[in-house]
Amino acid sequence: MSIISIFRFRFLRRNKLAKNIKNIVGFYPNDVFLFEKSLIHKSAVYDHSSKYTESNERLEFLGDAILGAVVADYLFKKYPLKDEGFLTKMRSKIVSRHSLNELSKKIGLDEIVIARLDKKSKTDSIYGNAFEALIGAIYLDRGTKACESFILKRILQPYISLEKLENEETNFKSRIIEWAQKEKRELTFEIVSETGEGRNKFFEACVKLDGEEVAWGKEKSKKKAEQIAANKFCQKFKLLDE
Amino acid sequence: MSIISIFRFRFLRRNKLAKNIKNIVGFYPNDVFLFEKSLIHKSAVYDHSSKYTESNERLEFLGDAILGAVVADYLFKKYPLKDEGFLTKMRSKIVSRHSLNELSKKIGLDEIVIARLDKKSKTDSIYGNAFEALIGAIYLDRGTKACESFILKRILQPYISLEKLENEETNFKSRIIEWAQKEKRELTFEIVSETGEGRNKFFEACVKLDGEEVAWGKEKSKKKAEQIAANKFCQKFKLLDE
Repeated sequence: MSIISIFRFRFLRRNKLAKNIKNIVGFYPNDVFLFEKSLIHKSAVYDHSSKYTESNERLEFLGDAILGAVVADYLFKKYPLKDEGFLTKMRSKIVSRHSLNELSKKIGLDEIVIARLDKKSKTDSIYGNAFEALIGAIYLDRGTKACESFILKRILQPYISLEKLENEETNFKSRIIEWAQKEKRELTFEIVSETGEGRNKFFEACVKLDGEEVAWGKEKSKKKAEQIAANKFCQKFKLLDE
Repeated sequence: MSIISIFRFRFLRRNKLAKNIKNIVGFYPNDVFLFEKSLIHKSAVYDHSSKYTESNERLEFLGDAILGAVVADYLFKKYPLKDEGFLTKMRSKIVSRHSLNELSKKIGLDEIVIARLDKKSKTDSIYGNAFEALIGAIYLDRGTKACESFILKRILQPYISLEKLENEETNFKSRIIEWAQKEKRELTFEIVSETGEGRNKFFEACVKLDGEEVAWGKEKSKKKAEQIAANKFCQKFKLLDE
């Protein structure tokens, strides 16, 4: 390939990519190749013949943190009267691996992700990871404000129904009981303490796995305390990821 | 108490608090009572006779996310050539529960935390939690830039030695082996796959707990792959929190 055709090829690739990115994020990127990097699954780097030398994993690390902060800020302001248990649950639902994979496909990122995997090894999480990496790229390319605006206007507002998420059945207790049956582990709930009186009365529930206390929850009813403990258990064992 | 003396009391409290906050964060807060809220452990709210109606838990939720994002951005830019495994490890060390508790005490937050706990129930984590809540308060009171600047100039630069953290012994493998012995669980390591050739050769290690695969790591040497798997195991079981 002559030097001119190398440049021409690079120019065309750059243009096509810039258009694809524009369609997804709403602006032409300053640094197209930063956005390209956000699309590169590590399988495309490990490949011998690959022209890519770096995957999107560093950008994913950054984007994951930025997304977490923007969603936390959004929920904090949206729900001034809800406690942190509610906020944590809502955020978990929005940024769960499953939710990110779906969002990624909704904005069409799955069409342009760069990976070298056979069908069997391809899981949806490569789309969710690329989604986080894209957030990282927007943050670096355009700064905090633009990144926040992308997340709010192009992701949360069009695709996330807070009302639906709020009402979504999150019976953590039944979820972990199912999990324990599948995994053949012994799981029990116990009320370990009752404190206070009247409207200040609190119950503390605990989940035991194979006889060991692993997660706790404190609330005004036994049922709620168990749900909180079960939710914490889910977080601990990453049961909300898929 | 007359209305005048209530106002006078509130004014004095406000003034004293504003000075304390100024000493810690470097500026007089716009909203002193927002900062006061960041100091209130839930035990001071549950108390019957308490004048406080809301704890710092919502602010802690917000501050935790903001801190995570600022530290991620800082490390991402500080180490342009390090992979996300390294970045994740460094961040875990900086924002571990233990590290936050220590930072909180270093800036003197432990002196002004508001809690109603007997000595036995008081754990250092109330300081780390208040530290996160303080970050949330700064973010709301002064915005992103000021919050970032507080974290960088008043926390990371004076108190965190990256060099020391980098060299800190993080033998995750021995840590989880110890943990498993203490918890009487069966823990084994296994190399589950080898892929690629030459400089692209990768080993995948897996940690099994009671015979079940629970964490994986892929790297260019078996030893490194095991360390990554062990690190992921630590994250999964929250073994890095203390």
